Amino acid sequence: MKRRDEFGLIRLLTGGQHTPDALADRLVVGNGDDAAVMSGRTGYDWIACCDTMVEHVHFARRTMRPSDIGHKALAANISDIAAMGGTPMFYLVSLGLPASFEEAEIVEMYEGMSRLADTYHMALVGGDTVAIPGDGPLTVTVTVLGEVEAGRALTRAAAKPGDRIFVTGPVGSSGAGLHALLAWGIDELPERWQTIAEAHRLPMPQVTAGRVLGASGVRVALNDVSDGLASEAWEIAEASEAALVLMEGSIPVTDDVVAYATITELHAQDWALYGGEDYQLIGCAPPDEQERLNRAFQDAGISLHWIGYVAEGPADVRIRRISGEEAPLAKKGYNHFQ
Amino acid sequence: MKRRDEFGLIRLLTGGQHTPDALADRLVVGNGDDAAVMSGRTGYDWIACCDTMVEHVHFARRTMRPSDIGHKALAANISDIAAMGGTPMFYLVSLGLPASFEEAEIVEMYEGMSRLADTYHMALVGGDTVAIPGDGPLTVTVTVLGEVEAGRALTRAAAKPGDRIFVTGPVGSSGAGLHALLAWGIDELPERWQTIAEAHRLPMPQVTAGRVLGASGVRVALNDVSDGLASEAWEIAEASEAALVLMEGSIPVTDDVVAYATITELHAQDWALYGGEDYQLIGCAPPDEQERLNRAFQDAGISLHWIGYVAEGPADVRIRRISGEEAPLAKKGYNHFQ
Repeated sequence: MKRRDEFGLIRLLTGGQHTPDALADRLVVGNGDDAAVMSGRTGYDWIACCDTMVEHVHFARRTMRPSDIGHKALAANISDIAAMGGTPMFYLVSLGLPASFEEAEIVEMYEGMSRLADTYHMALVGGDTVAIPGDGPLTVTVTVLGEVEAGRALTRAAAKPGDRIFVTGPVGSSGAGLHALLAWGIDELPERWQTIAEAHRLPMPQVTAGRVLGASGVRVALNDVSDGLASEAWEIAEASEAALVLMEGSIPVTDDVVAYATITELHAQDWALYGGEDYQLIGCAPPDEQERLNRAFQDAGISLHWIGYVAEGPADVRIRRISGEEAPLAKKGYNHFQ
Repeated sequence: MKRRDEFGLIRLLTGGQHTPDALADRLVVGNGDDAAVMSGRTGYDWIACCDTMVEHVHFARRTMRPSDIGHKALAANISDIAAMGGTPMFYLVSLGLPASFEEAEIVEMYEGMSRLADTYHMALVGGDTVAIPGDGPLTVTVTVLGEVEAGRALTRAAAKPGDRIFVTGPVGSSGAGLHALLAWGIDELPERWQTIAEAHRLPMPQVTAGRVLGASGVRVALNDVSDGLASEAWEIAEASEAALVLMEGSIPVTDDVVAYATITELHAQDWALYGGEDYQLIGCAPPDEQERLNRAFQDAGISLHWIGYVAEGPADVRIRRISGEEAPLAKKGYNHFQ
C-alpha cells in the first residue's frame, strides 16, 4: 500500500477544497474540526440523506473508474435531495479503503466527487477515512445536507387517484450501459456504446427538476429512480396507498438503448422498468396541473414525460400494454451485480 | 445468512422507532422517504459529523457485543457534537453487513444504538443497509446532526498562551479495558475488570459538559478524546498554533486503571495519553475563567480537571514530569487493533 497515513490523506484530499461563494456565509466551521457547523434559518428546512456504495455490489473496477465511483456515490445522494425538491449544499464522505486501493485512485475518486459537487456549488465539510483490513471491499458512504423552503419538501405519500404520472427523462440507459460495460469492460468498450456507458458511470441527478416541482406549489408525490421505475413506482404506491398504472408506449427510452437491446436481443423495457441508477425523478401530479408543469419545465429548459395515471388503492403497480391489456409489475428492484 | 431482504430489515429496525417529544415539532419528514427533513431556525447553527467503524479495526467480536458496536458507533459521533458544544438531535445509520452477521445481531446492534439515542432524546431519521460480499468486515457509518446557538460552536483553534488545559473526566479506562478484553475475551473476563471493560464497550459522550462550556460564554478550545489525550492535544496545538504542556500528576486516571496497570506491569499513563476512545473532552480556557467554569460544572453535577497550561507556539505538546523535567509527547494516536 503506497499511501500516506489517514491524516495526511485527509489533508491531501481536502486541502484543495474551496467553499463556493453561495455557501460562504452559511458555512460557520468547515472541514477539519470535530464536526461541521452550518447556519440555519427560519423558513427553511434541512434535508439529510446517507447512502453507502460497496465494491462488487454497486460497482466493479471492470465497469467504473475511480472518478466514476466518486461521482456516483455523491450523485446518488444528491438525487435523494432532488427527490425531496431541495437544493443540495454540503456533503461528508466516509471511506473504507482496502490496501489494494492506491493513493492515486483515491485522489481520482475525490476529483470525480469534486467535479460533480462544483456543478451544484456544494462544499465538502467532513467525513472519515478508515483502512479496510485484508482484501475487503472499497466502501464509500456519502451524507448530503440540503435545504428546502419550510413545508415544501416533496414526499412519496402525496399521490391521489386521478393523478397523472411523470418521469423527468429517459430511463434504462444506465442498466443497458452496465450490461455493455460488463460485456466488454470499460477499456474495451466500443465507441458506439459510450453514451449508454456514461449514463451508467456518470448519471446526473435532476436537481433543477426537483426545484421546479417544489417551486410550482403543485401537490406532487416524488421519488428518484435509483432502483428502477417499477420499484420506485411501488414506493409511491405504498406510501400513498394508491395503484399506479404505467403506459407501455409512453416510457421514454433513448435510441441508443433501443439499438443496444436489438443487438443483444434483450428488451429495452426491462432496463427501463428494472434497470435502476438513472436518477431521473418519477412523480404524480393532478391532471389539471399538467399544463402548468409542462410550461414550467419548458421554461427551465428540461424535459417532462407523462407515462401513466393513478387509480384507487390498495397499493399496486401495473403496466398497461399497447394492446390494452394490463399486467402486474413486480416490486423487484435493481440487483446490481447479483 | 438467515436474514430478511434489505427493505424488510429496514422496516424491522425502524418500525419501533419513535420521535422524542422534544424533536416532534422539528422533524418534518422522518425515516422512510428519500431523505429526512428537519426544520431550521434563525439563531441556531446545525452541526454535522460522520464516522465509520470497521470490524477488526475499531472492534472485534472478542471484545464487543453487537449492542456495544451500535452504542459505540453512535457515541463516537455524539462525542463530536459534544466537542463543538452542541446538542445531538438526529442520526442516520449506514450498515455494510457481511453474510455471517445474523439478523438477531443486527437487531441487537440497533438496540444498543437506540438505548444511547434515547438517553439524549435523539431520533433515527435515515440511512442505508448494504450487503458486504464474501467475508468482508462489518462496517457501521453513523451521521449525527445537532444544533448549537448561532456562533457558539467551540472549535480547536481558540487556545491562547496562558490558557489552562482541562479534561472532563478520567482517561485511559477504555484503553485498559481493551487490553483486558483482548487478554480474556468478553465472555471470560473476570468481574474485577468489568468496569474498565465497560468504559471500552459503552463509553458515554460528554454532552452536558459541552453544553455547559458553550453556555458559559467563555473562550474555550475544545476537542473530544477519541484518539488519546496526546493526539487530541496535538490537534488543539496545531489548530491554535500553541504549545500545550500537560502536568504528569494531574491527569485523572481511575483506581481500577491503576490496579490493572499494576497487575499487568504496564503504565496507566500510556493508556491515558495514547489509549483513546474515552470520549471525555479536552479543552483550554483562560486562567481567570477557571473558577467560573468550576462552579458551572459543579452546578451541573459533573467533573472538571485542570491538567496543564498553554505556552507560546509553534505547535507542540509536552508533558511536565513530577520531577520538573519536560518531555515531548508523540503525535501518535490510537492504533486500535494494529
